[in-house]
Amino acid sequence: MYKGGGPAVAVLCAQRDAKGPHRAPARRIDESARRSGCEAALTDSGVEVTRTLARFVVECRPEDIPDVARCEATRSLVNWMGCALGGAHHEAISRALEALTPFAGPPQATIIGRGGRTDCLHAALLNGMSAHVLDYDDTHLRTLLHPSVPVASTLLALAERQLISGRAFLDAFVLGVDVECRIANAIYASHNVNWYITGTAGVFGSAAAAGRVLGLDERRMTSALGIAATQAAGLREMAGTMCKSFVHGRAARNGMVAAFLAERGFTSSERAIEAPRGFAQVLAPGSKLEEIAAELGGRYEIMLNTYKPYACGVVCHPVIDACVRLREAHRLQPSMIGVVALRVHPLALKLTGIREPRTGLESKWSIYHSAAVAICDGAAGEQEYTDERVRDPVVAEVRGKVSADEDASLREDEAHVTVALVDGRALEEHVAHATGSAANPLSDQGLETKFRQLAEGVLSQARIDVLLGKCWRVDELPDVGELARLAVPPI
Amino acid sequence: MYKGGGPAVAVLCAQRDAKGPHRAPARRIDESARRSGCEAALTDSGVEVTRTLARFVVECRPEDIPDVARCEATRSLVNWMGCALGGAHHEAISRALEALTPFAGPPQATIIGRGGRTDCLHAALLNGMSAHVLDYDDTHLRTLLHPSVPVASTLLALAERQLISGRAFLDAFVLGVDVECRIANAIYASHNVNWYITGTAGVFGSAAAAGRVLGLDERRMTSALGIAATQAAGLREMAGTMCKSFVHGRAARNGMVAAFLAERGFTSSERAIEAPRGFAQVLAPGSKLEEIAAELGGRYEIMLNTYKPYACGVVCHPVIDACVRLREAHRLQPSMIGVVALRVHPLALKLTGIREPRTGLESKWSIYHSAAVAICDGAAGEQEYTDERVRDPVVAEVRGKVSADEDASLREDEAHVTVALVDGRALEEHVAHATGSAANPLSDQGLETKFRQLAEGVLSQARIDVLLGKCWRVDELPDVGELARLAVPPI
Repeated sequence: MYKGGGPAVAVLCAQRDAKGPHRAPARRIDESARRSGCEAALTDSGVEVTRTLARFVVECRPEDIPDVARCEATRSLVNWMGCALGGAHHEAISRALEALTPFAGPPQATIIGRGGRTDCLHAALLNGMSAHVLDYDDTHLRTLLHPSVPVASTLLALAERQLISGRAFLDAFVLGVDVECRIANAIYASHNVNWYITGTAGVFGSAAAAGRVLGLDERRMTSALGIAATQAAGLREMAGTMCKSFVHGRAARNGMVAAFLAERGFTSSERAIEAPRGFAQVLAPGSKLEEIAAELGGRYEIMLNTYKPYACGVVCHPVIDACVRLREAHRLQPSMIGVVALRVHPLALKLTGIREPRTGLESKWSIYHSAAVAICDGAAGEQEYTDERVRDPVVAEVRGKVSADEDASLREDEAHVTVALVDGRALEEHVAHATGSAANPLSDQGLETKFRQLAEGVLSQARIDVLLGKCWRVDELPDVGELARLAVPPI
Repeated sequence: MYKGGGPAVAVLCAQRDAKGPHRAPARRIDESARRSGCEAALTDSGVEVTRTLARFVVECRPEDIPDVARCEATRSLVNWMGCALGGAHHEAISRALEALTPFAGPPQATIIGRGGRTDCLHAALLNGMSAHVLDYDDTHLRTLLHPSVPVASTLLALAERQLISGRAFLDAFVLGVDVECRIANAIYASHNVNWYITGTAGVFGSAAAAGRVLGLDERRMTSALGIAATQAAGLREMAGTMCKSFVHGRAARNGMVAAFLAERGFTSSERAIEAPRGFAQVLAPGSKLEEIAAELGGRYEIMLNTYKPYACGVVCHPVIDACVRLREAHRLQPSMIGVVALRVHPLALKLTGIREPRTGLESKWSIYHSAAVAICDGAAGEQEYTDERVRDPVVAEVRGKVSADEDASLREDEAHVTVALVDGRALEEHVAHATGSAANPLSDQGLETKFRQLAEGVLSQARIDVLLGKCWRVDELPDVGELARLAVPPI
C-alpha cells in the first residue's frame, strides 16, 4: 500500500524522525529522507495519518493559516447560512424535529431558520440537514464532499455554548474542512459510488473543528478522529429520500459527539484512519493514504471549495448552463423541442441518472429533469425541483425527450448538449466549465444573490441585510453565536 | 447474485405473487413456483428483502411465535440484565455519561445499574454500552452478532415511555433478534473481519423491535429499516478501546431513532438492504441475500442464541475450557509450565490475536492472556481481565509461553491444547464444544449464577433476588418498565 512513497511519505518520515513536538507543519519535501530507506520503515505499522492530522489541528497557529483561506471560509459560511435558511422549513426537517424533540436536551443552540432552541447535538443534526436538504450547499469538486455541512453546523452550535470569536471560528472552519477533504482525497475514487462521502469523511471534519474549539490536546484529538471513524456511515442508495439530508446532518452531530467523548478521555484506536482494518481500507479499498498528510499546512483544501448556482446534483450543472444558454439564444419554448441529447462525464449518469423522478427530492438527482426545467423555465433553483414541477405535464413531456450518453473524455464540469427542434433545426452548445466550478467560480455577488433568494420568506428584508452583513464580517465578531441568534424569524 | 435460487427464492416469489396482504409468514417451500421460471423474475429489481422483513415484523401474530422462542428471549433478557448491571460502572460508561449528560433530554428512562434517568435515546446508548462493555453478553455463534444489546436496550428504554406488557416485550424481542440475525447470516462471511456486525446488522434489530412496539405499519416499518441501514457503522479496528462498547450501544440508539423518524413519515429507500448500492452489497460484497427471508416465521434465530461463561471473546472459550480442565486434572501451578501450544479455528487468531495486551480491555481480545489466566487462576471472569491481572508478572510469564496455530479443520467452538511441563511431561486436552456453545449451552442455573456474580456489589442481595425473579417471569409482567426501575442501587 505504502510502497508508492512519494512526497507524502517523505513528509511523514520527516515528522516521525523529528525531535520534539512538531511545531509547524512540514512543507518541504525532503528527497534525501525519501531515498535514505525511510520508505522501508513505512510498512503498514509505521504510517501515522490519524495522529499527524490530530497534531496539525492542535498545533496549527492562526498565523500559519493564510488570509485567503479564512476568506474562502467566510464565503463558505455565507453559502451555508443561506442554504440552512432556505432548507429549514423542508418537510424532512419538520418530520425530524417532530420525531426527535421529545428526546431533546436543554435549549443550548438555535434551530436556524425556524427559531426555538435545542441541545447542541440536535442543533448540529437539524441545521446540518437544513443546510443540505436542498442539495444546494457547497462542493469540494474533486471528491464531491460538501465541506460546510459537517463543519459549520457543528461550530455554530458550539458557539452558542461557549464564546467563540470570529477568528477562532474561521481557523477551526479552515482546519475542519482541511481534515475532511484530505481524507476524502484519499478515498473518493473507490468510495463515492456507494457512499455519501460527506457522511463518511465529513464526520472527521466536524470532530476536528469541534476538537479545535474545545482545545483538545494531541492525544485527545487523535481519539476524537478515531471516535469519528467508527461512526462513519451513509449509503448512496438513499438518494432522493429524506435520509440523504439525515446522513449529512449526522456527520455534524456525530463528529461533535466524538469531540466531547474524547474531551473526557474516551479512548479509540490511535490509527483509526490508516490501520489495515481502519476507516480508509475498509470503506475504500485501495485508498491513497499517502495523500492525506501531503503538504499539510502548505495548501488548504478550502481553497478548492465551490458553490452551486443550481439546486441539484453538481454533476448536472454544465448541462443546465448549456440548456439555459440555448433557451436564451434561440427563445426556445417547450413546444419547439423534438429531441434533447446530452453528452456528459460518466459520473453524471451514475449520480443523477433517475429517469422518471417521482418527487421534488428525486428530481434533484435527475439530469433529465434538470435539462427539462432549464429549457422550460430557464432556471434550476428550488422552484424547479418541487413535486408540482415534477408532475407538470409540459415539463414531463420535455423530460421524456431527453436522452443522455456518457463520454469519459469529458471533464465533470463539462457537457455537450444537442437539441433537435420540431422544425428540423439542430442546435448545439458546449460548456467547458460549469458556472460555480473551480475554473468558473460563483462571485461574491452571486453568493449574495443566492443567499437573499434562499432567505426570502424566512427572514424579513431588514434581518436578511443585518445577517448577511455580519456573515461577511464574521472575522470581526467577538461572539459568533450572534449569527445563529440572528438567523431566525422575528417572534 | 440471485441466480442461486433455492428455498428462499421460492418463498419470495410466493409472497410477491400472493393476492392481498401477506397475513402469515410463508413456511412451505413451493417447488413448483421455483421451477416455473419465477427465478428469472428475481433479477436485482425483483427481490424485496427490506419490505418482506418489515411486513413480517408488522404482521406476525403472537400466536405465530412459539413459546420456546419467548423462553429463549427470557434467558437472553436475564443474561443482558446481568451484563448491564456488571458493566454499568465501567470507566467507558462513566466517561460517556460525563460527556453526554449536558446534552441529555428529559428523564424518561433509567440508567441501569447506576440510577438516574435520561432520555430514551441516551438510555438505549448507555445501557447498550453497559451490557456489552465486559464482552460478556450473548452471541449468535454463526455470525458472532450480540443479539440482545441492540434489542433489549431499546425495548427496555421504550418500556418506560409507553406501557409495554411482558408478552409484547418478548414478541418484539424475538422479532428484533430475528431481523438482525437473518441479515447477519447473509453478510457475515465477508463482513466480520472488518466490521462489528452488531454495529451494522444490530441497528436493524433495534429498529424492528422499536417499530413493533410503536405499532408502525408496513410502509413505515420499511422506512425504519432503511433509516437503520444508512446508520450502520462500526470498525473492528476499535478492538480493545472504549469505542467497541460505543459501537454496540449506538446500534440500540440509532435503531430507535430510525423507528421514531419512520413513525413521523420520514422517508428512506424501500430497498435499503438489497439494492445494488444498498446495505448488504456495500458493506458485504457477495452477501447471500436469499438467506434473509428463507423460512421466515418457520424458524427463529433466537433459538441459536448462546451465553458466555467467560468474560472475553467467544472464540477463546474452548481454549479456556481446556486449560481449566488441565489445571484441575493435573493440579497445575504457573511454575510447572514449560510451553503451552494452542490449536484453534483460524477466526480465533484473527479476532483474539493480541499477543501482548496492555490493558484489561485489550486482554479480552488475547487468546494468549485467556489461556494464561485459565491456567493460573482456573477462571476467566471479569477479575481475570483487569489491568492488574494483565501486568501481573506470573500471568505475563505464562502468557509469554503460549503459542497458537490455526487449524481450519476445527470448528469455532473446538480447540486442542498441549502443555509441556518443565518436568518433561506433555499434557493434552481436546474440547469438542466449548461451554456456552450451541451444542453445550449454559443452563438456566448457569445464567443465574452469572447474573448474581455480575449484580453483586451493584444491587443489594434482596434487590438481586427480586429483579432476577421478575426477569425470569417477564411474560407475566403488565409493565416491563418495572424491570428498569428495579435495576438500580437503592438511594
